[in-house]
Amino acid sequence: MTTDPTARHYDREFVRTFFTTPTAVEGADDSAKMLRSAAGLRGMEAPDVWVPDNEDATAPSMREEGAENVVEVVAEHGADVPAEIHPRVVWHRDSPATRYRGFQQMRTIADPEGGAVEHIDGFVIPEVGGVDDWKKADEFLTIVETEHGLEEGSLSMSVIVESGEAELAMGDLREEMGKPSNNLERLFLLVDGEVDYTKDMRAMTPTGELPEWPELRHNTSRGASAAGLIAVDGPFDDIRDVEGYRDRMTENRAKGMTGIWSLTPGQVVEANTAPLPPEAGYWLLDDGEGETELREDDGRWVYDGDGLGLEAAGDGYVLRADGREQELDGDELQTELLDRAAYVPSMADIVDSMAEFEAAKEAGKGAIAMTRAATIEIDGVAVDVESDRMWDEATYQAAKTPIDLFQDVYEHRPDQHDALADRYGTEVVERATELGT
Amino acid sequence: MTTDPTARHYDREFVRTFFTTPTAVEGADDSAKMLRSAAGLRGMEAPDVWVPDNEDATAPSMREEGAENVVEVVAEHGADVPAEIHPRVVWHRDSPATRYRGFQQMRTIADPEGGAVEHIDGFVIPEVGGVDDWKKADEFLTIVETEHGLEEGSLSMSVIVESGEAELAMGDLREEMGKPSNNLERLFLLVDGEVDYTKDMRAMTPTGELPEWPELRHNTSRGASAAGLIAVDGPFDDIRDVEGYRDRMTENRAKGMTGIWSLTPGQVVEANTAPLPPEAGYWLLDDGEGETELREDDGRWVYDGDGLGLEAAGDGYVLRADGREQELDGDELQTELLDRAAYVPSMADIVDSMAEFEAAKEAGKGAIAMTRAATIEIDGVAVDVESDRMWDEATYQAAKTPIDLFQDVYEHRPDQHDALADRYGTEVVERATELGT
Amino acid sequence: MTTDPTARHYDREFVRTFFTTPTAVEGADDSAKMLRSAAGLRGMEAPDVWVPDNEDATAPSMREEGAENVVEVVAEHGADVPAEIHPRVVWHRDSPATRYRGFQQMRTIADPEGGAVEHIDGFVIPEVGGVDDWKKADEFLTIVETEHGLEEGSLSMSVIVESGEAELAMGDLREEMGKPSNNLERLFLLVDGEVDYTKDMRAMTPTGELPEWPELRHNTSRGASAAGLIAVDGPFDDIRDVEGYRDRMTENRAKGMTGIWSLTPGQVVEANTAPLPPEAGYWLLDDGEGETELREDDGRWVYDGDGLGLEAAGDGYVLRADGREQELDGDELQTELLDRAAYVPSMADIVDSMAEFEAAKEAGKGAIAMTRAATIEIDGVAVDVESDRMWDEATYQAAKTPIDLFQDVYEHRPDQHDALADRYGTEVVERATELGT
Repeated sequence: MTTDPTARHYDREFVRTFFTTPTAVEGADDSAKMLRSAAGLRGMEAPDVWVPDNEDATAPSMREEGAENVVEVVAEHGADVPAEIHPRVVWHRDSPATRYRGFQQMRTIADPEGGAVEHIDGFVIPEVGGVDDWKKADEFLTIVETEHGLEEGSLSMSVIVESGEAELAMGDLREEMGKPSNNLERLFLLVDGEVDYTKDMRAMTPTGELPEWPELRHNTSRGASAAGLIAVDGPFDDIRDVEGYRDRMTENRAKGMTGIWSLTPGQVVEANTAPLPPEAGYWLLDDGEGETELREDDGRWVYDGDGLGLEAAGDGYVLRADGREQELDGDELQTELLDRAAYVPSMADIVDSMAEFEAAKEAGKGAIAMTRAATIEIDGVAVDVESDRMWDEATYQAAKTPIDLFQDVYEHRPDQHDALADRYGTEVVERATELGT
Repeated sequence: MTTDPTARHYDREFVRTFFTTPTAVEGADDSAKMLRSAAGLRGMEAPDVWVPDNEDATAPSMREEGAENVVEVVAEHGADVPAEIHPRVVWHRDSPATRYRGFQQMRTIADPEGGAVEHIDGFVIPEVGGVDDWKKADEFLTIVETEHGLEEGSLSMSVIVESGEAELAMGDLREEMGKPSNNLERLFLLVDGEVDYTKDMRAMTPTGELPEWPELRHNTSRGASAAGLIAVDGPFDDIRDVEGYRDRMTENRAKGMTGIWSLTPGQVVEANTAPLPPEAGYWLLDDGEGETELREDDGRWVYDGDGLGLEAAGDGYVLRADGREQELDGDELQTELLDRAAYVPSMADIVDSMAEFEAAKEAGKGAIAMTRAATIEIDGVAVDVESDRMWDEATYQAAKTPIDLFQDVYEHRPDQHDALADRYGTEVVERATELGT
Repeated sequence: MTTDPTARHYDREFVRTFFTTPTAVEGADDSAKMLRSAAGLRGMEAPDVWVPDNEDATAPSMREEGAENVVEVVAEHGADVPAEIHPRVVWHRDSPATRYRGFQQMRTIADPEGGAVEHIDGFVIPEVGGVDDWKKADEFLTIVETEHGLEEGSLSMSVIVESGEAELAMGDLREEMGKPSNNLERLFLLVDGEVDYTKDMRAMTPTGELPEWPELRHNTSRGASAAGLIAVDGPFDDIRDVEGYRDRMTENRAKGMTGIWSLTPGQVVEANTAPLPPEAGYWLLDDGEGETELREDDGRWVYDGDGLGLEAAGDGYVLRADGREQELDGDELQTELLDRAAYVPSMADIVDSMAEFEAAKEAGKGAIAMTRAATIEIDGVAVDVESDRMWDEATYQAAKTPIDLFQDVYEHRPDQHDALADRYGTEVVERATELGT
């Protein structure tokens, strides 16, 4: 996409979507048909990182043709593709023959005669082992750059973490990346590959479902944080289960892993959208069975579930919760509901809070209280609640992450400007892009 | 057990059971009585790894006699014991005196004059610290091998991970095992020891119950995966709680930890059986309170709980779930139930699916859809559901783990062939042993 | 507090409370007012470690004055402060200017002319990066010691872990602390800082709440265990949520993390008290929705919830649990309740059990059964249950942690003797202080 090679792999600070496409499909009139179709995606359907996949998504017998397809399609359409382009080649820590084939595929794709390399941002290397194995892939990239007259380190390298060795290697990157004997500074994405990881760990579940691997995802996110890289979660196989995909992304973001693999343009839309703050804020209420979203109705936030029950009784209230009834006066009820309630701020709310804090800071204040009020209604009984949260510099910095993400998206994805304006309105978009600058 | 010493610790790829026996019991007519009894176990009651325990299970004053008992009993019965035999000796990272005693115990047990060593596969070293401490134990084993004219590296070494240092050491094994200055290639099992680990971490729970230590178990499994070793969980103290033991093993397998400590022959039976696929498949249904096993009745799968409710209403249905009622048409109901249902395949199911995929692969297909259909009945209302799952090479490889385990058991445990045939039938056993070969 | 500098950072084996105070408040008559007030805390309101906070709690423009306030207040009151005193200075792994200011602040505070340093136990360094960054802070401390004629290594160093790099560094401490090129043996506390860690990891949650970071806390606790240090959790912002603070501490203790940050004297009281065993034991019952505390009434332990139901029926019982009814005879009912029940021992109970085990050990027994009996009442039906637990040396050692903590508190906090006697009675306190000595 970009043409200054040394800057390529630093272009994006966040990657929401990692979208793979088979490079060659057997039996079709045009084996590159899926590549061509993916190259045409724009706006929310287009990923942040597009991965022509010359490994698992493509049959072994088609991979030679696949590498040529990548050259042809990227040479023709690469300049217009809004995504960064990172083809995946074959690789295996335990197989020199596979590594040799991966080397050849990289040579083919990066050959300037094909006209694709100026739009190629880097390569994705699957099935890496310990750090020494990462260095082999790095060295092959250096040799490819030398052979083709590309600047050393100009092609980025992303890896699929799908072995215990690779998980451990992420703890050593920070030390290894500084050494003059390698070009590991080219590293870009750390992508979990849970299917093969499960095989490598020899894990089993009764139904064959993948384990959740929370520790792997933590370690990937930490490895990325410690080495200035970007963490991406693996594929979510059940394409119809949109709710499950969203839940997984919410979990991932709480681990600092903002990106996720997408298998279809539909998943790309979900994954491009999910990390952005909602267009309208809303309240959650913990009713003992989980956090339930309240329904706004004429300025009140109504609870429709049956986990909680409330009725006025004399001067006070009876609250039924967790299978028990409590008699509470008005203040106790407010406290109880406040403990159970939480507000999910909209983009506009975040922008307002940050602007307010910035103004306070300029006026010499180190901390201010942010107040949020609502009327919550349970069984027809309305209760006013009001929460204060202290904001200091650290709160401000932590709250800034969604805005940093938004600004990164806005800068690098002009093709999504319309969708963002539709979602938030022009004024909010404008204020969000100017915050903290 | 085996007599080719260099191959010994590579014999097993999986270890389901790690069964400890006191080496000497005070006050008994025959202090080796428990050893003799354990040496006589066969079939599902006999563990994969038998550990005459000259450490915590045996009183300190009895350990000298214990080492001699091990020699005597193993010399006499070792050739017939179906398990690998790995005595545990004393050791402590912080005590040279304890390490010295452990060295002496190993010398005694491995002395060819006693006639036991040809049946001894290796030693278990408890209370190890950082990698340098592991190297001390390794060196003592090398010296014992030299003194007794055994081949260098022929005795395997397993460790009990029961300190923070040892947990960290598991991240370095891969690097350290290759070095010419040690024989750490002899490593075999990484066994968690949660009681002493809890003490070392100074952890406390209100009731004195052990913490679950999910991160320790992950790190042990990962360390084993990265270094080609086998991960084993620690003892489950509440011997009567069979359900709890099974739940723990299910959790462990989802982490890639297939083996577990067994304290009684009853626990050995449970732990030898649990990792094997069930003899008959069955459906689970998530009713909002967890995954409930459905009851088969005349071809339908019946839900007996009260977490879900279903009734036909006009053209459609009313489903009560998670404390809410939803009106659904037939398609929506099928989708909803499909999301909640999951199938636990039997051994025969797994063999069928793998054979089907192997045939498809031979016919040049890289991926096929596996369909699973059932009639689920809730409150007397029957609903047909059908799930498709795409299988590709990676799915196949990950699904193969239980078959690899089965084949490993079948190869090394002829004494369990009858039990396996009883469980699965001869035909399924035969097909399972031939898969992928 | 103490005057033998080399021993300072080894004084405490446990730290329950880490209490920060702004060093200089703008606009007040006396900018050191909060420091003076904190220096006057005694008894359960006084923390184990007091941290005059010249970083985040104090406005940047006030920090020069803050360092001088620390000198003044500690010189005047330090001798009487029951806590260890560890001022926090500014630091940042990515900013030489910040590190330079931190160096100057340490020089100011440790200058013997100010008269404070003899009461200063060490410094707290925030925002550290990899181990090399820790070494820079260590070296500055060495230079400060040299400049001011203090013994090398006499000032301890505690760090705030609030970056992925620092989390990884905790895995290397054990190796690094032994090297002659540094004085990292001065390390004392590893303190998590979840607000800035969340920012560094770029994690996001819908409501802006902090993620729970269980892996970080495990790794901090493990790092402390492996290097002989003390793990402390970060601040709990919602000061009114006492229940939440207690739950967090219970979780932390199960991870081996005994200490926690306290933001107010009220939180200090909670955090000083929480790790001590309760004054009276009580029973918990798992009713399917969690562990519920039973209410003692005239020798019976009464269940008041509605998750479980019980009635006598003919010769047996009907137990309603998890949305199902089971018919059970008396023995089955006892077994079922025993599985669901757990006892939380009081300090006196722990002392009794340990004394009993010590006596048994002296009599030559390696393991004894500890019995605990109770009458549990559900829906007016009383059931006797009795649980046996085997105690061996390992159980004893693990159970000893709360007593070790108590003895450490008793030795170092004479100002809390009255509160401890009020809580437990003089006789129990006396027996607890003498156990195992």
